[in-house]
Amino acid sequence: MLDVCLLGTGGMMPLPGRWLTSLLTRYNGHSLLIDCGEGTQIAIREAGQTFKPIDILCITHFHADHISGFLGVILSMMNSGKTDPLFVIGPKGLEKVLQGLCVVCPALPFEIRLFELETRETVLNLCGYKITAFKVNHNMVCYGYTLEIERSGRFDVERAKAAGIPLKLWNPLQKGNTVEFEGKTYTPDMVLGAPRKGLKLTYTTDTRPTDSIRKYAEDADLFICEGMYGEAEKQENALQNKHMTMQEACHLALDAKVKELWLTHYSPSLSAPGRYRKELKSIFPEVHLGRDGRSTILNFEDEKDDQA
Amino acid sequence: MLDVCLLGTGGMMPLPGRWLTSLLTRYNGHSLLIDCGEGTQIAIREAGQTFKPIDILCITHFHADHISGFLGVILSMMNSGKTDPLFVIGPKGLEKVLQGLCVVCPALPFEIRLFELETRETVLNLCGYKITAFKVNHNMVCYGYTLEIERSGRFDVERAKAAGIPLKLWNPLQKGNTVEFEGKTYTPDMVLGAPRKGLKLTYTTDTRPTDSIRKYAEDADLFICEGMYGEAEKQENALQNKHMTMQEACHLALDAKVKELWLTHYSPSLSAPGRYRKELKSIFPEVHLGRDGRSTILNFEDEKDDQA
Repeated sequence: MLDVCLLGTGGMMPLPGRWLTSLLTRYNGHSLLIDCGEGTQIAIREAGQTFKPIDILCITHFHADHISGFLGVILSMMNSGKTDPLFVIGPKGLEKVLQGLCVVCPALPFEIRLFELETRETVLNLCGYKITAFKVNHNMVCYGYTLEIERSGRFDVERAKAAGIPLKLWNPLQKGNTVEFEGKTYTPDMVLGAPRKGLKLTYTTDTRPTDSIRKYAEDADLFICEGMYGEAEKQENALQNKHMTMQEACHLALDAKVKELWLTHYSPSLSAPGRYRKELKSIFPEVHLGRDGRSTILNFEDEKDDQA
Repeated sequence: MLDVCLLGTGGMMPLPGRWLTSLLTRYNGHSLLIDCGEGTQIAIREAGQTFKPIDILCITHFHADHISGFLGVILSMMNSGKTDPLFVIGPKGLEKVLQGLCVVCPALPFEIRLFELETRETVLNLCGYKITAFKVNHNMVCYGYTLEIERSGRFDVERAKAAGIPLKLWNPLQKGNTVEFEGKTYTPDMVLGAPRKGLKLTYTTDTRPTDSIRKYAEDADLFICEGMYGEAEKQENALQNKHMTMQEACHLALDAKVKELWLTHYSPSLSAPGRYRKELKSIFPEVHLGRDGRSTILNFEDEKDDQA
């Protein structure tokens, strides 16, 4: 299962009562943060989340409202006793930007490992997350992120017994490892059924609707997307500033056949996003107006079966 | 009169419900900000203050909780339509620190003029404020600030008439300017009475008690000082981390004969500063436990008379 918490929903500037847009997920003891504008460290505390398990930080782009809280997050990690490395993924130039923001940062007790994105698509496997970064269309280089938790087939005890596989190899094989033992090679497919459906979450802000989003968000369990404006007369602003209206986000969700859409990254001028709910649901019924701290748990399909 | 607003009262890290310590004053259309940790731009909005009139920023030192919100404040100034220059005063190294923090900052529509402090005491006259920066004693170079609004003597109409000073010169003379007119020199002392008592505010955080504070806070109308800890057993922490207890701040206020003391910069572990009120008042009766948004107006003595 994947815990998902939308820490903030604001775009451009943090407001009293609305943190800047960022997301925190938790899976198997590893948290992943997407973006950290000014105040994100406070939003993390307010949501009851913790800093120590944050092992991955994905940066969409280098506008201040997505990155200016980096120093605060890093210092809070330090104060939490974190010693495991932090992987930071972001556009080309990441090292220079973080060096600048950390000009007053003391020596850290953990390592920061950087991945600068240079191609249209990059896939990274880190801490159990399959992370796909893909280019979107903003007025500076900007990436969307798809997070996938893959799910191997169910362990088949009868097949393992029938094949005479030693008991001590069951656990590594179940975890997907190939094992050499007493001159023989054992592979996971000898004991595992067909791969089961995993979990998929796609996150995009600061972009026009793009084919890349349609592709990488396809069939996602949860699609979190900017809905900067709601008013019809703001369509021109969305085009000009390379943002999206809530209505455009709903059409994108429909095209990508996602299960659920959360809107976020509201313009400071948008004080009551909920007023567009009815109109938006007529485009895509499974739309939700994100709010700071909105959380959910995405369960694997067979976990759902177990619970049923 | 001088408007004073304590924007935040936290030390070390911003918390839900407690912004990092900073101060905003307003005088004659010019606002002055002291320090800007992460979230100060939100605290400014929450306090109902505005960005455009902020013409002076004083930085005490370069720990993140006092400077990491610089970029956000600057961008909010930009969005406010500010075009007047911003004076930034701070310790040596200021330019390098601000350049780092502004690594993702676009071109600004206003000029930033830096004053790097290099001596134990520096006096600057800016926008009607007499600003004295003085060294205090922290674990890095740190300055306290005394803000004074000087008050010239009352304009004496009878003397001006008796001396035959042309009417058109009255206004510049009243404002303290020397004027040459038709071959004669007119000076303010020809029309002004004895200087009247002005206003004085002293602000110090992140320091042990020092003689410099006793000197520069002497007789202040308002002394705003850190009170990082309240518990007697935290005296050791105060010594080690070069901070002050609330009790030490009260003794300092007493020594400096200030009229009123506001405490601020509370440790994150100090959840209810008010519990020490009684003890503190027994040391210095005019102590107040600062809280986010605490405001006052300091009036000139003769303004008070006018109001009486």
